[in-house]
Amino acid sequence: MFSYLNMNGGEAAAEQRAVARLYEQSRAAGLKLNMSRGIPDKTQVDLSQGMLELLKTPEDYMADGTDTRSYAAPMCAGLPCAKAFFAPFLGVPEDNVIVGGNSSLNLMHDAVARGMVFGFSGCEPWAAQSLRGKIKFICPAPGYDRHFAVTEHFGIEMVTVPMGRHGPDMDAVEELVKDPAVKGIWCVPKYSNPTGVTYSKETVERFASLRPAADDFRIFWDNAYCVHDLYGTSDELANLYELLARDGREEMAFIFVSTAKISFPGAGVAAMAAGAQGAARIKKAVSVQTIGFDKTNQLRHVRFLKDMENVHAHMKKHAAVIRPKFEAVLNELDAQLTPAEIASWTKPRGGYFISLDVLPGTAKRVVELCAAAGVQMTPAGATFPYGIDPEDKNIRIAPTFPSVSEIEQAAELLCLCVRLAALEKITGVKAL
Amino acid sequence: MFSYLNMNGGEAAAEQRAVARLYEQSRAAGLKLNMSRGIPDKTQVDLSQGMLELLKTPEDYMADGTDTRSYAAPMCAGLPCAKAFFAPFLGVPEDNVIVGGNSSLNLMHDAVARGMVFGFSGCEPWAAQSLRGKIKFICPAPGYDRHFAVTEHFGIEMVTVPMGRHGPDMDAVEELVKDPAVKGIWCVPKYSNPTGVTYSKETVERFASLRPAADDFRIFWDNAYCVHDLYGTSDELANLYELLARDGREEMAFIFVSTAKISFPGAGVAAMAAGAQGAARIKKAVSVQTIGFDKTNQLRHVRFLKDMENVHAHMKKHAAVIRPKFEAVLNELDAQLTPAEIASWTKPRGGYFISLDVLPGTAKRVVELCAAAGVQMTPAGATFPYGIDPEDKNIRIAPTFPSVSEIEQAAELLCLCVRLAALEKITGVKAL
Repeated sequence: MFSYLNMNGGEAAAEQRAVARLYEQSRAAGLKLNMSRGIPDKTQVDLSQGMLELLKTPEDYMADGTDTRSYAAPMCAGLPCAKAFFAPFLGVPEDNVIVGGNSSLNLMHDAVARGMVFGFSGCEPWAAQSLRGKIKFICPAPGYDRHFAVTEHFGIEMVTVPMGRHGPDMDAVEELVKDPAVKGIWCVPKYSNPTGVTYSKETVERFASLRPAADDFRIFWDNAYCVHDLYGTSDELANLYELLARDGREEMAFIFVSTAKISFPGAGVAAMAAGAQGAARIKKAVSVQTIGFDKTNQLRHVRFLKDMENVHAHMKKHAAVIRPKFEAVLNELDAQLTPAEIASWTKPRGGYFISLDVLPGTAKRVVELCAAAGVQMTPAGATFPYGIDPEDKNIRIAPTFPSVSEIEQAAELLCLCVRLAALEKITGVKAL
Repeated sequence: MFSYLNMNGGEAAAEQRAVARLYEQSRAAGLKLNMSRGIPDKTQVDLSQGMLELLKTPEDYMADGTDTRSYAAPMCAGLPCAKAFFAPFLGVPEDNVIVGGNSSLNLMHDAVARGMVFGFSGCEPWAAQSLRGKIKFICPAPGYDRHFAVTEHFGIEMVTVPMGRHGPDMDAVEELVKDPAVKGIWCVPKYSNPTGVTYSKETVERFASLRPAADDFRIFWDNAYCVHDLYGTSDELANLYELLARDGREEMAFIFVSTAKISFPGAGVAAMAAGAQGAARIKKAVSVQTIGFDKTNQLRHVRFLKDMENVHAHMKKHAAVIRPKFEAVLNELDAQLTPAEIASWTKPRGGYFISLDVLPGTAKRVVELCAAAGVQMTPAGATFPYGIDPEDKNIRIAPTFPSVSEIEQAAELLCLCVRLAALEKITGVKAL
C-alpha cells in the first residue's frame, strides 16, 4: 500500500480495480452487520442482570421510609437515596438533583420544552420570543444527532461550531453568545459523541466564564459518558457546576447523566441538576407533570450500583467487553487507511464512538457502499445539525454492539469502502 | 337523632354541645389517619408482587424479537405486545396506541404541552393563540385536582361545568364549545374522580356529537378507573372512540389509561390513544423526546396481567380489599348524616372516591376540624378549578389507604365534624 495522494492515473486505476475486487468479495459474503448506534451488547446488558433479581419481597422495596412501589408524591424529584447516588455523577449538591425516569434525553427534551413554554430567568418564553425571530442553539459538530433532533423539533435554529481536540471552538462560542437570540449550547463534555474528546480544563473554564447576552442562555451539559472509561485511567473533566458557582452563575447550566450505558439502555435511570433556583422550578414543574417517576427502578439501581467506587468497578467490566472492539476498529483503520493518507480518526479513551473523517465529499458514498455490502453505518451527516455535513466527510463508528469478529469484518469492509470512495473521487470513475 | 333543618334554637344548642363533646373525646384519642389521596393500600400493592419476580433470566426479557432491557428504538411507542394489551382498555385499534412510562398524568401533561408548542389540526400553537387572549379548558367539577393543576400550569383558563348523575352538564358543555377559545375538556368518564359517576350512554353520545368552534379542541378522556369495579357488575361506558369514528371525528379525543391502581401506583404502565393522524404525530414527537419508555416494565405487566379477562379477575381481588372500606364510610355517613339531613353523597360502584356534599359554607371548616383531630382529608376546594369550591360544600373522601378499622374511626370523626360545622353555621356559634 501507498499514499493515495501522490498516485499517477495508472496507479490510481489499478488500485481502484484491486480494491473493487476485494469489495466485491466481501459483498458476496453477505454480511449483515450494524455499526450505526451506540448500543451496549448483550454481554454488557447481562452485567446488570443481578439488579433485576435483587429486590424480591415487598419489604425489599421499602427505602427512605416509603414503599417505592407506591406514589410517595413528596418524593417526586427522586428517592432521597437516589438523589444522593447521582449527586457525585452530576458534581452538584444533593438538593440540586432531580432523578427522572429511564431517559436523560427525555429530561433534556422537557428542559427545552420548559424554555419554550415558560422561559428561564424571568425572560419571555422562548416560544414567544421565536415569534419575533428565530432563537438559536449552538451545536458543536460533529455531535449527537438526538440533541439536534430535539432542537429542530422545537423550531430552534442550529448554529454549528467545530469540535476540536479540546472541545468546541470556544472563540466561536464566545462570539456567538453575544447574540441575544442564542439561547443554548449542546455539550457532551466527556468522551464526546462521536469524537471521544474530553473537554480540557481550559475549555470548561471558558464555559464557566461565558457572559452571554441572553440571561436565559443555558448550557446543556450532557455528561452521558462520565464514568465510561475504556482504559485504566479516566480523562479528567473539570466540574462545571463548581466553576460556575464561584461567580454565582450556576443557574446557567443544566447537567444530565444516565445509567443507560451502565445498567440497561432502555431501563436505566436518568438524573439532572441545575442551580438552586432552577432546580426548585424544575421540581415544581415535575410535581405537576407526574406524581413521580418510577422509584422501584431508582431503588434497584441504588441497591445494585451502590456508589461511585462500585460503579467504577462495574464500568471496568464494560470496558473489558468493548475495548477489544474499539481496538479492532482502530487496528483496521490504521492498517488500511494510514498508508493511504485519505482519512483521520479519533482514538477515544472512553465513550461509545470513533469519529472517522474520510476524504471530503465521500462520506455519503462510503456509507452507501457499506450498506450495499450489508454493513449499516450511522447515516453520513447525522453528526451535524439538519443532517448536513458541509464537507461530507464525517462518519460515526459505533463499535460496541456487534461481536469482536463481526467488528473485524465490518471494519475491514468499512475501510475498503473508504478507499474505494476515495479512489472514485480521485479517478472520477464510479467503480460500481 | 333528628333533622337539623327543623330544630329550634334550644335543640340546636343542645345538639351542638353533645356533638362537641363527642368530637372532643375523639380528638383526645389522638388519631393519625389520612383519607386525602386515592392510594391503594399495601395489601393491594402486594397483589402484584409476583410481577416483580416473574422475569428472571436475560431470556425472560426477550419479547417481540427484542431485548426489552435495551433500546429497541423502533419500538418507541411501546412494545407490540404492550400495545395489544392496552388496546382493549382504550377501546381503539392497536395502531392507535402509544405505551408510555409509569404515569398517565405525564402523558396528559405532554399532550397539553404539545398543544401549547405545536398546536393541533394545523391550528396555531395554543401558546401563540394565548398571546391574543386566554385559551380555555372546560373542567367538570367536582373533578380531579391534578388535571386542574396541569391546566393552570400552562396558563389555560378553567371554566367549570357541574358534574351531574350522568356526567358533566352537557347543555353547558355544548354551549361552551361554541367559543373558539375553548380548546379542551377534562373527563374521567368511568367511576369519575371524585363522584364515582359513570358517564351515561347519552352523555358519551353527546360528547361524540360535539361540533366545537375550535378545530383544535380536544377531549381529554382519562379512563383511569376503566376496570376498577367494586361489585360483581361493571358500569357500562360507551366507547367514545367508536362513536367518534362513525363520523370520522376520532381525532377529537385523547384517551388515557394506567395500571397505577391495577399493579403499582408508582411503578405501573400508562398508555394513551388518539385518532390515526394524532397517534402518528404523537409517535413522531415521542421518538424525538426519548429513545423509548421502559420496556422491561411494559413486559412485566403484559406477562403478569396477560389480558382483559385476567385483569378483571385481578381487579376482583382489589375490590375485595377496598369494598369493605367504602362500605364502612357509607354506613357511617348513613348512620350519622341521613337523619340530620345536612349532607348528600355518592355511592360509587367503582373507582377510588366518595364525594360528600356538606352544608354549603362548611366544607373548609369540616376539613379543618378533621385535621385538628388527626384525620387528614383532601383540602376543601381541591376538587374545583383553582381550588375554589364556590359553595364550599364538596369534600372528597379517599377510603382506600387506611385499614378498615382506621376507616371506621376516620369516618366516624368526619361525620361528627360535618355535624359540628353544620351546627356552628345554624347556631352562629363556633363550638371550638
